[in-house]
Amino acid sequence: MGKTIAEKIFEAHTVDTLSGGISVLKLDAVFCHEITTPVAINDLVAKGLDRVFDNTKIKAVVDHVTPSKDSKTAEQAKILRDWARRHDIKDFFDIGNNGVCHALFPENGFSRPGYTIIMGDSHTCTHGAFGAFAAGVGTTDLQVGILKGICTFKTPETIKINVTGKRNKGVYAKDIILSIIKKLSVNGATNKVIEFTGSVIDDMTMEERMTVCNMAIEAGGTVGICYPDETTVDYLWPFIEDEFKTKEMAVKEYAKWKSDDDAKYAQVIEFSIDDVVPVATVGFKPDQVETIESLAGTKVDQVYIGSCTNGRIEDLREAAAVLKGKKVNKFVRAIVSPASPKTYNMALKEGLLEIFDTAGFCVTNPTCGACLGMSNGVLAKGEVCASTTNRNFSGRMGKGGMVHLMSPASAAATAIAGEITLASEDK
Amino acid sequence: MGKTIAEKIFEAHTVDTLSGGISVLKLDAVFCHEITTPVAINDLVAKGLDRVFDNTKIKAVVDHVTPSKDSKTAEQAKILRDWARRHDIKDFFDIGNNGVCHALFPENGFSRPGYTIIMGDSHTCTHGAFGAFAAGVGTTDLQVGILKGICTFKTPETIKINVTGKRNKGVYAKDIILSIIKKLSVNGATNKVIEFTGSVIDDMTMEERMTVCNMAIEAGGTVGICYPDETTVDYLWPFIEDEFKTKEMAVKEYAKWKSDDDAKYAQVIEFSIDDVVPVATVGFKPDQVETIESLAGTKVDQVYIGSCTNGRIEDLREAAAVLKGKKVNKFVRAIVSPASPKTYNMALKEGLLEIFDTAGFCVTNPTCGACLGMSNGVLAKGEVCASTTNRNFSGRMGKGGMVHLMSPASAAATAIAGEITLASEDK
Repeated sequence: MGKTIAEKIFEAHTVDTLSGGISVLKLDAVFCHEITTPVAINDLVAKGLDRVFDNTKIKAVVDHVTPSKDSKTAEQAKILRDWARRHDIKDFFDIGNNGVCHALFPENGFSRPGYTIIMGDSHTCTHGAFGAFAAGVGTTDLQVGILKGICTFKTPETIKINVTGKRNKGVYAKDIILSIIKKLSVNGATNKVIEFTGSVIDDMTMEERMTVCNMAIEAGGTVGICYPDETTVDYLWPFIEDEFKTKEMAVKEYAKWKSDDDAKYAQVIEFSIDDVVPVATVGFKPDQVETIESLAGTKVDQVYIGSCTNGRIEDLREAAAVLKGKKVNKFVRAIVSPASPKTYNMALKEGLLEIFDTAGFCVTNPTCGACLGMSNGVLAKGEVCASTTNRNFSGRMGKGGMVHLMSPASAAATAIAGEITLASEDK
Repeated sequence: MGKTIAEKIFEAHTVDTLSGGISVLKLDAVFCHEITTPVAINDLVAKGLDRVFDNTKIKAVVDHVTPSKDSKTAEQAKILRDWARRHDIKDFFDIGNNGVCHALFPENGFSRPGYTIIMGDSHTCTHGAFGAFAAGVGTTDLQVGILKGICTFKTPETIKINVTGKRNKGVYAKDIILSIIKKLSVNGATNKVIEFTGSVIDDMTMEERMTVCNMAIEAGGTVGICYPDETTVDYLWPFIEDEFKTKEMAVKEYAKWKSDDDAKYAQVIEFSIDDVVPVATVGFKPDQVETIESLAGTKVDQVYIGSCTNGRIEDLREAAAVLKGKKVNKFVRAIVSPASPKTYNMALKEGLLEIFDTAGFCVTNPTCGACLGMSNGVLAKGEVCASTTNRNFSGRMGKGGMVHLMSPASAAATAIAGEITLASEDK
């Protein structure tokens, strides 16, 4: 019987099998940030287990609150920093060199087809865009990962979503994934792998696939995953060119991970984007999705463009295209947080930062920032934010605040109008 | 008998005289930010006194923690914002349009020769660079200022510091004022006006004079003040050209504020800069000043360039000149916070942000940031920071942290070396 991509990755990484269908997987990478890792580190130190399995396979970054906003976050960053130095972690990214883990790590070639990756972060599923099995884990799993380079998983069932059809004007990856989550519901894929396939995914850039996989968790999925292909190889080429003679050989090698035609799925969903239009969330769950058109006129206090979902260079280009020559509404605070140093540098050189600045945006350094309400744009009670992030949970961006998730283009148009609106070219 | 500039401003603004030599002064401007003003606003509202004396003379900005880092700072900003809207405060600066008050307000022409200005901020003395009597006040004075546009002051005595001599290579305004504070001590000018005069001050740009006056408070001075001259008029010209036919006429008019030759001073200090060299603070008081050379080799964890003291365009140019083509030391977190939107925009267009970014600096949005340990670079226990800010008090930039105050050029050189060092051209 054929296998899914997840099953193939499991098969290649299983070092032991426990009762109840639980596999012990060898890990290719353990990603760490300064919010969840210090807890694991402190506990390991207290237990006399201050070791790491492989200092080249652990990647660490200070990204959630950076630069530190108070003594607590300064101490958290210091714990991670000291640990990284103590164990000579080869890839540690600190202030001046840091950015959102799920943007920074792929840009450095750390996410590869067929990889197993864990991190103490729910949006670790982002790296599935590269054909990796990448999952968020809790402190204990993270500790075992750091110590031994293994993690236990029950082989998850897979939901395959075959995304086909033709994009309407003004529809971006964010509109597509929000529309898929609306269909699946927030627990439609709980504990399952979501395999994103079909012509629409095939045609997507890596940045778009990351936007899509990033939000798999919002439908409950453990992992979101795409097949590696030419697009994947093009993106990764600077990091893999020594490994393969030609791009074609890399594509061929990675193709082995692709699910077999006769693989067994828990569910196969055909999803046509023919009717998908620009959308935004309402309420406090990411499956509460309505058309931007139906929400038109909803006043906002803040617009936030950034995060592991939509803070990459393509996202900034999309938003800047809408903003060029325009001004942010006087009652709106607009913030853009480029997701990584590379994004920041490209945006600077391409003149995007100047477009944002001239339009009246506040341009922050690369950081997770306001997305999770920990810095750089926390909402006050009763305030409304149009945001390119991934979660509209109650209080996510500040106690008593309301978040409408949408694409960078819609967020930029909303910043100009002061109320939710379609980007003008899409009206 | 002749009068000092402060006495002349008092004379022109006194609307009443109380016992004990206390004058009630009419205010030309009341400056407000989101840390100290909300307390005053809430209290006024509670007392049924929610009024403002003149919505064109109150200037308000969210600058200390911006964008908001948590619910508390979000609510503080909202109180200021709602109040500014409620009273139609003409000049209110919010996210995307905001920056450090003492950089932003002068840039907008709000600080003028002969003005009386108060603010709930100790570095209000900065505006004395324009020949204004500008003083930091507490909540009650701020409330009276907001309500009635007046403030009571005991006519302060003046210490005149006549700064003369020739600058050595690598000596900036920051080195001069730190050397002056070393001479005066931290309480050498308590409750006094410090009048900065002499050829060195005459030759200074407005940005340099602001750096000097900004730190008057660090010697205990209520106010630091310079005479308005051609340099002042050049800086202010875009804002005053409708008022005066020619620059010469403006210079002549403003000259009336200059202290009379026979004015009486509490003390006159001759200060030659012939022997001033690049310096930095040690310990926890700003008068603990040593030469950079004697501190060479002191390791730092962080370098911070910004603040109302040294976050202006000239400061960024100074630092960028040192950084160009260089890289920040791998063990140093380097942060630059342009002090205002104009500074940010100029730095972007002049290519300075790219120099900082390429060197490995974290470039934040305009904000007071790390200076007072409230955001964007708070130190952890035991960490050392080379900083262009104004206070090295214990815990100022983070509990248990140590701050060495210095010029932007020295800070930039220190960022590259990873330890305190002279900018290379000055070695």
